[in-house]
Amino acid sequence: MYISETILEVRYYETDLMGIVHHSNYIRYFECGRSDALANLGLPIHEIEKLGIMMPVVSVTCDYKLPAKLGDKLRIVSTVNELPKARMIIDTVIYNQEGNTVCAGSVTLGFIHVNNRRPTRAPSFIIDIFAKYYKEND
Amino acid sequence: MYISETILEVRYYETDLMGIVHHSNYIRYFECGRSDALANLGLPIHEIEKLGIMMPVVSVTCDYKLPAKLGDKLRIVSTVNELPKARMIIDTVIYNQEGNTVCAGSVTLGFIHVNNRRPTRAPSFIIDIFAKYYKEND
Amino acid sequence: MYISETILEVRYYETDLMGIVHHSNYIRYFECGRSDALANLGLPIHEIEKLGIMMPVVSVTCDYKLPAKLGDKLRIVSTVNELPKARMIIDTVIYNQEGNTVCAGSVTLGFIHVNNRRPTRAPSFIIDIFAKYYKEND
Amino acid sequence: MYISETILEVRYYETDLMGIVHHSNYIRYFECGRSDALANLGLPIHEIEKLGIMMPVVSVTCDYKLPAKLGDKLRIVSTVNELPKARMIIDTVIYNQEGNTVCAGSVTLGFIHVNNRRPTRAPSFIIDIFAKYYKEND
Repeated sequence: MYISETILEVRYYETDLMGIVHHSNYIRYFECGRSDALANLGLPIHEIEKLGIMMPVVSVTCDYKLPAKLGDKLRIVSTVNELPKARMIIDTVIYNQEGNTVCAGSVTLGFIHVNNRRPTRAPSFIIDIFAKYYKEND
Repeated sequence: MYISETILEVRYYETDLMGIVHHSNYIRYFECGRSDALANLGLPIHEIEKLGIMMPVVSVTCDYKLPAKLGDKLRIVSTVNELPKARMIIDTVIYNQEGNTVCAGSVTLGFIHVNNRRPTRAPSFIIDIFAKYYKEND
Repeated sequence: MYISETILEVRYYETDLMGIVHHSNYIRYFECGRSDALANLGLPIHEIEKLGIMMPVVSVTCDYKLPAKLGDKLRIVSTVNELPKARMIIDTVIYNQEGNTVCAGSVTLGFIHVNNRRPTRAPSFIIDIFAKYYKEND
Repeated sequence: MYISETILEVRYYETDLMGIVHHSNYIRYFECGRSDALANLGLPIHEIEKLGIMMPVVSVTCDYKLPAKLGDKLRIVSTVNELPKARMIIDTVIYNQEGNTVCAGSVTLGFIHVNNRRPTRAPSFIIDIFAKYYKEND
């Protein structure tokens, strides 16, 4: 299991006329969280793309529990429970500064070649880095 | 069952460096679709809010099938399969101009009072308008 | 002089906690307006890019007069006063449904080659199409 | 003169199909910069709004010099050259990690009362905090 944390402050333009963060922005926070998760492993996304691999989003789910507001400092916790193979699944929970859950969801990424946009399995340079976080029988 | 359609053209700023529409924007297209769905029933969201009701998003799911690109004209089909009670569920499918499915998902909305932000059931002015689209035993 | 008009409805996610359209979104509406301006001339931006030319933004100005709100139907009027040479300048005014000016600004675009990202002058396929809208001494 | 700095990393969704940060996002980075500028003075925007004052944007200008890319770490330098009176002007320059100027612009804010949305001059709680950064004859 690999876990990574990111702290983000709510930006004004991310709020809507309900006075809270617009629900679509949490999907973007999820992306910020997993970008950090990969960068913390030495795999920033722009470097992955230079190595010829893009990771498009295959599916997203998000359950909204408590609205985030301007002034909130959010903690995004990204967890990769299984070694990526054909897909990488990142479960993400966002907490506010009081420790309450703002929302929780899951994002599935695929792998494609940059040049021909054809799907592929997780490349070895990704698997190798993730492997140490998982038991052999995972 | 109530179905509504919206046509949207992809905007330049909605694309990302993969050269396709960023996945978070489909969640926003879903919102455009259901806004139209409600407006077509005589219930534009800004009028619903004037009547004291807000409809926050409770959950979202989206499966991505085929990327949308600049120049694409998308058809957003929003379906409310069941009469809204405590929640309103809008299933949404987005097709491109070739009729291929770009993505498909589901959004669940709650109902809250504008003044105290307390949850409530679907107000009668919404149920009454939707009722004619459903059989009695729905 | 070449003038083009676009009608856009305010989207919910474009509002902010002041209850009005966030100021950054008018810069995006400007882009929607000039995309239509070019498409109406038979030059949709994705086709221009296929012909090897990108048109990055060099500068933007915007004066905000009156906030747009959810439910507003905006009219974006894009005017190209001079034949594009090294640059293309698009003056844009956005009006609401009452005909009041929401904001007014100007965007200057450059021209670069897609392959090497080097600056260039307006290509002949753009000048030729624009030329008929300007007197010879423009 | 009051100067404040903010460091921001480019987010994936902020890029567009040119492979660079979409120009509208710098207008949003300006906002992040001035939000920090005010927060660093003990005036976070959500607190200013609780005190009854909103600060809508009156005008924006931005000159784009060099595109920012995914992986860039940007330094936003916000400068308030004059004591705010009827307006507050924030000049902003954004630099990349090599110290090159990405873009530079200016944002003028007004002051309005939250309750009636009427314009007002800068309230004393803002002037008092800013005053120490300016000579008497400013």
